[in-house]
Amino acid sequence: MSATLASLAKEEEVPSKGINTLRAIEDQHGGVIVNIENPMDSSVFSSLLEASISQWREQGKKGVWIKLPREHSNLVDSAVKAGFRFHHAEPDYLMLVNWIPNTPDTLPANASHRVAVGAFVMNANREVLVVQESNGRFSGQGIWKLPTGGVDEGEDICTAAVREVKEETGIDTKFVEVIAFKERHKSFFRKSELFFICMLQPHSFKIQRQVSEIEAAQWMAIEDYMAQPFVRENELFDFLTKIGLSKFNGKYSGFSTVLSSTSSCKKSYFYFNNNDAGHI
Amino acid sequence: MSATLASLAKEEEVPSKGINTLRAIEDQHGGVIVNIENPMDSSVFSSLLEASISQWREQGKKGVWIKLPREHSNLVDSAVKAGFRFHHAEPDYLMLVNWIPNTPDTLPANASHRVAVGAFVMNANREVLVVQESNGRFSGQGIWKLPTGGVDEGEDICTAAVREVKEETGIDTKFVEVIAFKERHKSFFRKSELFFICMLQPHSFKIQRQVSEIEAAQWMAIEDYMAQPFVRENELFDFLTKIGLSKFNGKYSGFSTVLSSTSSCKKSYFYFNNNDAGHI
Repeated sequence: MSATLASLAKEEEVPSKGINTLRAIEDQHGGVIVNIENPMDSSVFSSLLEASISQWREQGKKGVWIKLPREHSNLVDSAVKAGFRFHHAEPDYLMLVNWIPNTPDTLPANASHRVAVGAFVMNANREVLVVQESNGRFSGQGIWKLPTGGVDEGEDICTAAVREVKEETGIDTKFVEVIAFKERHKSFFRKSELFFICMLQPHSFKIQRQVSEIEAAQWMAIEDYMAQPFVRENELFDFLTKIGLSKFNGKYSGFSTVLSSTSSCKKSYFYFNNNDAGHI
Repeated sequence: MSATLASLAKEEEVPSKGINTLRAIEDQHGGVIVNIENPMDSSVFSSLLEASISQWREQGKKGVWIKLPREHSNLVDSAVKAGFRFHHAEPDYLMLVNWIPNTPDTLPANASHRVAVGAFVMNANREVLVVQESNGRFSGQGIWKLPTGGVDEGEDICTAAVREVKEETGIDTKFVEVIAFKERHKSFFRKSELFFICMLQPHSFKIQRQVSEIEAAQWMAIEDYMAQPFVRENELFDFLTKIGLSKFNGKYSGFSTVLSSTSSCKKSYFYFNNNDAGHI
């Protein structure tokens, strides 16, 4: 079982009273988690599941989770027929869930957002770091755009921005601030996207583009960047560039980070206007 | 088929050359989407899928998506055995995907984050709006906390904060600013969470708590709120409250919103420091 599932569970096996049921562990919300690890015949699984559900109902269990690795996909249909619905899926597993009591379901929702970053990097000559992408909707049009990319699973926004710039252009940078962000719905299937525009400070200047994804990369005079129809005719890009410039000139405060420990000892980043909070 | 899938697809059927294959439509990235709408025997599906994959390979197709509604879960196993992996799932469907070419897969990632909001609402008497929750880790401890909640699918952050406060306390508010945000990883299975703290301005004052989820709600003197060990002993809660107070006193700028149209005519919110951007 994964470290994450483990952290959700108390690792306490639910007593089975001698009846043949599925092995389950309790979670912290009055439910149980079944983690299928070994191959099983689907009819055997169906019988075990039926007996288990009766038992969990008697025990007053609430949400029942079944984690099915891809290699046991022969069991999906049995779980659905027993009343389970899909909760979420990752490449290697499908999570199904069933709310047993006759009360409104308080199960947590699936992840709803993807997160992406864009980087505003300017050098002392007032040149902004820009790229032409090999793929995607801006490719083949001669458009110079800011480096952008997706935030990886478990990655911090401030780290993702620095990584994307390094990967696409070879330039080393330091995160300064989130200067703005944008939300967009139904960007991919039903999911929403949060796009964070970050100001980064360059620490190296020699460009080495990422051959696979980047057609070209350069330092471009900010005036030339802004003169592109792509920027000029898009209210948002135009405004965003002006915010970036204003930040560069020391006249704008976005959100910088402070690392904080939560009660569970996990480190997490807190983003706020440090300039204004200086006097707190 | 859903509106979202429709918007991804060009709605152009892939010609089948008379061979018996699955009905598929092209997407905008050189792939195809198969949307299973009618019941099908799993062995019939397997044969059709095999023939279809051969054809898509010949045609140079890249990503092949199969959207399986829950009622056709009998086909999941066949798709996996044909080389498909899970991409994402919602309660009512499972999306599987298969990258056909011998090149690195450029398929978009699944949603990685859940988004939540917390609301800082203060009245003219310097009383902050607080609740005691019926469930969750803060219940039964007499802790007065800020109203919080999850952002619904497709909902804006600024809208979610106003909705949560109305639901939990009955108070009408107007969104002012995101004053800070926090990211937390592995908050639920592998997923991360972004938590946005919003300053809202109250427009009504008579509290009517949400009976199902809220044990109690009140306007509480800010000093009493801050004196709680729960706030005082948590560096982050303490700091956050000070930011909220500072904002209330007009000495802090967070990110307010502007509504902008994107190229696809969808409206989306852009969050930035409007106070500093005033001179742009």
